[in-house]
Amino acid sequence: MGKKVLIVGGVAGGASAAARLRRLDENAEIILFERGEYISYANCGLPYHVGGAIPKREALLLQTPQVMRSRFNIDVRVCSEVVSIDREARMVTVENRAAGERYTESYDTLILSTGSEPLRPPIPGIDSDRIRTLWTVPDTDEIKAFIAKRGVKSAAVVGGGFIGLEMAENLRRLGLSVTMIEMLDQVMAPLDYEMALMLHKHLEQQGVSLRLGDGVDAFEHTDETVTVRLKSGRTVTADLVILSIGVRPNSKLAKDAGLELNARGGIVTDQFLRTSDPAIYAVGDAIEVRDFISGERTMIPLAGPANKQGRIAADNIAGAQQSYDGTQGTSVAKIFELTAASTGANEKALIRRGMKKGADYESILIVQNSHAAYYPGAAPLVLKLLFSMDGKRLFGAQIVGTDGVDKRIDVLAAAIRLGAGVSDLTKLELAYAPPYSSAKDPVNMAGYVAENLLTGKVAFSSWDALDKRDGAVVLDVRETMERQAFELPDSVHIPLGQLRERIGELDPARRYIILCAVGVRAYNASRILSAHGFKNVLVYPGGTHFYRSTHFPLF
Amino acid sequence: MGKKVLIVGGVAGGASAAARLRRLDENAEIILFERGEYISYANCGLPYHVGGAIPKREALLLQTPQVMRSRFNIDVRVCSEVVSIDREARMVTVENRAAGERYTESYDTLILSTGSEPLRPPIPGIDSDRIRTLWTVPDTDEIKAFIAKRGVKSAAVVGGGFIGLEMAENLRRLGLSVTMIEMLDQVMAPLDYEMALMLHKHLEQQGVSLRLGDGVDAFEHTDETVTVRLKSGRTVTADLVILSIGVRPNSKLAKDAGLELNARGGIVTDQFLRTSDPAIYAVGDAIEVRDFISGERTMIPLAGPANKQGRIAADNIAGAQQSYDGTQGTSVAKIFELTAASTGANEKALIRRGMKKGADYESILIVQNSHAAYYPGAAPLVLKLLFSMDGKRLFGAQIVGTDGVDKRIDVLAAAIRLGAGVSDLTKLELAYAPPYSSAKDPVNMAGYVAENLLTGKVAFSSWDALDKRDGAVVLDVRETMERQAFELPDSVHIPLGQLRERIGELDPARRYIILCAVGVRAYNASRILSAHGFKNVLVYPGGTHFYRSTHFPLF
Repeated sequence: MGKKVLIVGGVAGGASAAARLRRLDENAEIILFERGEYISYANCGLPYHVGGAIPKREALLLQTPQVMRSRFNIDVRVCSEVVSIDREARMVTVENRAAGERYTESYDTLILSTGSEPLRPPIPGIDSDRIRTLWTVPDTDEIKAFIAKRGVKSAAVVGGGFIGLEMAENLRRLGLSVTMIEMLDQVMAPLDYEMALMLHKHLEQQGVSLRLGDGVDAFEHTDETVTVRLKSGRTVTADLVILSIGVRPNSKLAKDAGLELNARGGIVTDQFLRTSDPAIYAVGDAIEVRDFISGERTMIPLAGPANKQGRIAADNIAGAQQSYDGTQGTSVAKIFELTAASTGANEKALIRRGMKKGADYESILIVQNSHAAYYPGAAPLVLKLLFSMDGKRLFGAQIVGTDGVDKRIDVLAAAIRLGAGVSDLTKLELAYAPPYSSAKDPVNMAGYVAENLLTGKVAFSSWDALDKRDGAVVLDVRETMERQAFELPDSVHIPLGQLRERIGELDPARRYIILCAVGVRAYNASRILSAHGFKNVLVYPGGTHFYRSTHFPLF
Repeated sequence: MGKKVLIVGGVAGGASAAARLRRLDENAEIILFERGEYISYANCGLPYHVGGAIPKREALLLQTPQVMRSRFNIDVRVCSEVVSIDREARMVTVENRAAGERYTESYDTLILSTGSEPLRPPIPGIDSDRIRTLWTVPDTDEIKAFIAKRGVKSAAVVGGGFIGLEMAENLRRLGLSVTMIEMLDQVMAPLDYEMALMLHKHLEQQGVSLRLGDGVDAFEHTDETVTVRLKSGRTVTADLVILSIGVRPNSKLAKDAGLELNARGGIVTDQFLRTSDPAIYAVGDAIEVRDFISGERTMIPLAGPANKQGRIAADNIAGAQQSYDGTQGTSVAKIFELTAASTGANEKALIRRGMKKGADYESILIVQNSHAAYYPGAAPLVLKLLFSMDGKRLFGAQIVGTDGVDKRIDVLAAAIRLGAGVSDLTKLELAYAPPYSSAKDPVNMAGYVAENLLTGKVAFSSWDALDKRDGAVVLDVRETMERQAFELPDSVHIPLGQLRERIGELDPARRYIILCAVGVRAYNASRILSAHGFKNVLVYPGGTHFYRSTHFPLF
C-alpha cells in the first residue's frame, strides 16, 4: 500500500491534484472529499447555462465521481464535508451529509482545495429566495428554475465583476431587463477606468442599465419583487437579484486546525504550496499567492492558477520540488460583443503602490486593427500597456475590442511572465497573414509606441484631455470627409497632408492636443510640429475611435 | 538641408523605412523609387482579391504616392527603376520607365528594398499568357481579367507554398476546378510531413486535386488549354496555370554595384542592416538573415520581418544602433477552413542539421480544444513542439486546426523569441474564460506533455506507428460507443475505466501502442501499464483525432 493522500474539495485544484497524483503514483491511496454533489464541474460555464448558450446541463459536469473512480482509482466521496483536522494524529473528521454521519480518516498528506464562496453580507432584507448567488451547479439549477417558473422579467445584478457581467449578458439573452449595480465607478475592476468606459457604453447599448458608484443599503420585498435601496437614495426594483460582489476564501477548516492564514483569511503556503504544516498542502482560491508583478502577497481567485497549483502540489507530494511562482491575474471576459482582457498590474494598482506616472511608470494606449484592414472582419482593439521608465519591465496590459483581444493579451501575458521589456515587444516575430494580423502586430506596435514615448519622440495627453482642455488647442488632422462624420467642437482642422504648408496658421506658443482617427496621423503631425519648434505638443491617444467608444455606444 | 536618403523599392521594407525616417528627421531629403506603378500595396492580400474575398481593388493600395508625398514629404517616384549604383560617387542612375529617360541622383545614404520575384524557370512551353505568377497588383489585375474574359474553368497551381495554397482556395471560391502540383511529397514546407497530411486531406475534401511528389517537365499548349506534363509521365490539363514555386531575391542591382552577396544571391548585411558598403542599407526579401534558431545565415522572405527591418534601417540612419536579431520564420496560412501555422525550426530542418531524435532533440504532438469543450464552437487543434533534450530550448512549433491556431503560434513564437524552455510553457498564465481557452491552455499542455516525456513519464509512438505496427499490440482504451463510431482493425479494446481490473488480459512482454480519442486517456493507461511492470508502452500521439485527420478528410 502506498501513501495515503486526502484531498478536500473536488473542483479545479482538487480534481487536478487527484488525477496528476494518480498518474505519478499508481499505489497511493487517494480519497477525494467534496461537500457538494458534483466534482470537477465547469464553474466558469455556469452563467452560460443560465442563458442557454450552453444548453445541456450535462456539459457542465466534466468528470463524474464514477469516472474518477474507475479511470483514476480515486475514492471520490461527494456530499462529504471535512469538518476538522487533527494535525497531531494526521486525521480528519468527515461529515457524510447524505447519511448525517461523521467518521474519521487518517492521512499521510492532506491537500486543501476548499475554494471560495460568494460574499453575502448582512444587508437588511438579504435573506430571500429572490436574492441569489451563482457559484455551483445547484445554484444554477435554482436560478434557471426560478426564472422559468416565477415568470421573472427583470433582474438586478449587484456587482460588475466577471460573474456579474457574464450574468448580465446571459439574462439579457433570456429577454430580461437587467440593471447592474456597482459600488465602484466602473465595472470589471482589473481594467482602468478609461478602458472600462468602453464596457459601460456597450452595456448600455445592449440594454443593461448601469448604476455605478452606488452601493446597496437594503433590500425590500413585496410578494412579487425586490426593491434594492441604494446608498444614493435611488431604488431599483426587479423580480430577481443576482449578488456577485466578490468571494471569500473557504478557510475555516484550515483556521480551526491552526494553520497560518493571512489577514483576509487566505491560507499561507510556501512556494511549494505547503501550508505551515508540511503534511498539508493547499491550492486554489483559498490560498494566498505572490503577486507576480509586485511581489506582494495577495489573493487572486482564478481557475487557471487553481488548476496549475493542483498539479504542482501533486508533483511535490510525489517527490518533486516544483515551485509556484506567483499569479499575474491574467483574465478575459466576453461582454456581449466585446472582449475585455487584462494581465499584470493596472494603473490603479501602481498608484496604490505609491508609484507616480512619469517618474516610476509610463503607459500608452493605442488603437490597432485585429488584422489587416483590407481583409474582411478587421476590427479595432484598444490596448493599454504599463511599463517601467527604463522600458525593461512590463507591469501590465489591458485590451478591449471585438476580435483578436484574447490573442494579444496572451502574447503580452507570456512576455510579462518571461521578463520581457518594451523593446522585446518590437522584436516578437508573430504570425502574419491578412486574416490573422498585420505585418506589425498590435503587440509590436505597443512596443514601438512605448519606445517612442520613452525616447521622447512622442508625448500623449491624458485620456480625458479633450473634455478638460485647460487652454490647449485641439488640432484635428483627419481628412475633411472624416470630420464631416464626426467633429469635436472647438477644434482646429488641418489635414495631415496640409500641415507643413499651413503650419503658419498655428501659434508655436500654444499647447496642442492632436487628434486623428486612431493616433497614427496625430503622431506624425506631432513630429512635424516638434521639428518646427513647437514645444508643447501632445497626441490624443487612440484618436476619435477611443474618444467615441468612451463617450458613445460603439455599435 | 538635411541628409539625402534614397530608397529603392516602395513596398513593405522600403515604405516602412521612408515613413519612419521622416518621423525621425523632418529635414532629410527622402526619395523613394519604385519600378512598378504602386507603392506600399497589400502583397499578402492579392490572392484574396482574385477570389473576391477582398472585393475592392482600392483596398489593396495601402498608401498612394500622393499621400506619401503630402503627409510624409517624401519624393515618391513610381515607374522609376534604379538601374545602377556608383558607390564611389554616391550616385544612382534611374530609369524613368514612363518617359524612357535616364538620370542620376546623388545620395548620402541608400536603402535597398528591392524585394524578390517569383521563380519562372526555363521549362519548355513556359512562355504563355496562360501561365502566370501572382506577385504584384498588375499580376492580379491580369489574372482576374483573364479568368473573367477567357471563361477559365480550370486551373493548375504549381507549387504548394503559401501563395499556391491561398490561390487554390481563392480559385475554388470562383468555382474553378483546381489541381495542385508540388514537387515535394507535401504542401506547405514549413510543416513536417505528418502535419501537412491534414492539409492534404482537407484540400481534397475542398475539391483540390493533389499531385504530390511530382515536378513539371514541360507545358504543352493548345488554343484553349495548357497541358502540364509531369516528371512521372502523368499530365494535368487546365485553362490557366498559376506558378508559385518560390521566389528569388532581386539583387542584381546590389551585385552589379559589387556589394557582398551570398551563394543564393541574398544581400549580406551586418546586424544593423548595413551592406558591405556602410553608406548602403538593405532590408526585406533581398537580404540574407540570421536564422534565429540555428544561428546560420539564410533567406526568409516574409512581410513581418521586412517591415521591421525597414524601421530598424531608418532608426540606424537617424543615428540609433538598433540590431536585427534574426528571423524565426513565424508564419500562418488560411487553407479553406483550416489554419496552419509554424514558428522556428521544423523536424526536417533539425534532421538536416544532423540532429537525431532522442539524442539531440525531442518532439511531442498533442490534440487540444481551442477553448472549453462545453462552450459552443470549440474545435480541436493539433500542436507539434520541438525542443532540446534538457528542455531548456524550444526549437519550433507547428499547429493545424480550425480555431485558435494563430493565438497559440503567437504565444509560442513569443516564448521562443524570449528564450523560454519547456517548463516555462507550463508556467505561462494565459487568459481563460470558456469562450477563449481552457484553464490549462494548449500551450500549457504542450509544456506539461514535453516535461512528462523528458522525465520519462510517457513515451510516444511515431505518428505512423498504427500503419507500421512492427508486432506491437494496439490497445484502444476508449469507450465502446466511441469505438462503434470508428474502430482501428486488429486492435484490443479495454476502456480505460476497466484497465486495472482487466490488466491480466494483457501480456506484459508485448509492446503496446495505446490509442484513445486525443491522447489523454492513452497517457493515463500507459501510466497504469508501466506501474504494473509493462516495459514497452507507447502512447499514440493525438489519438484517433490525429489518426483520422491524417487518413481521412476532417469534415
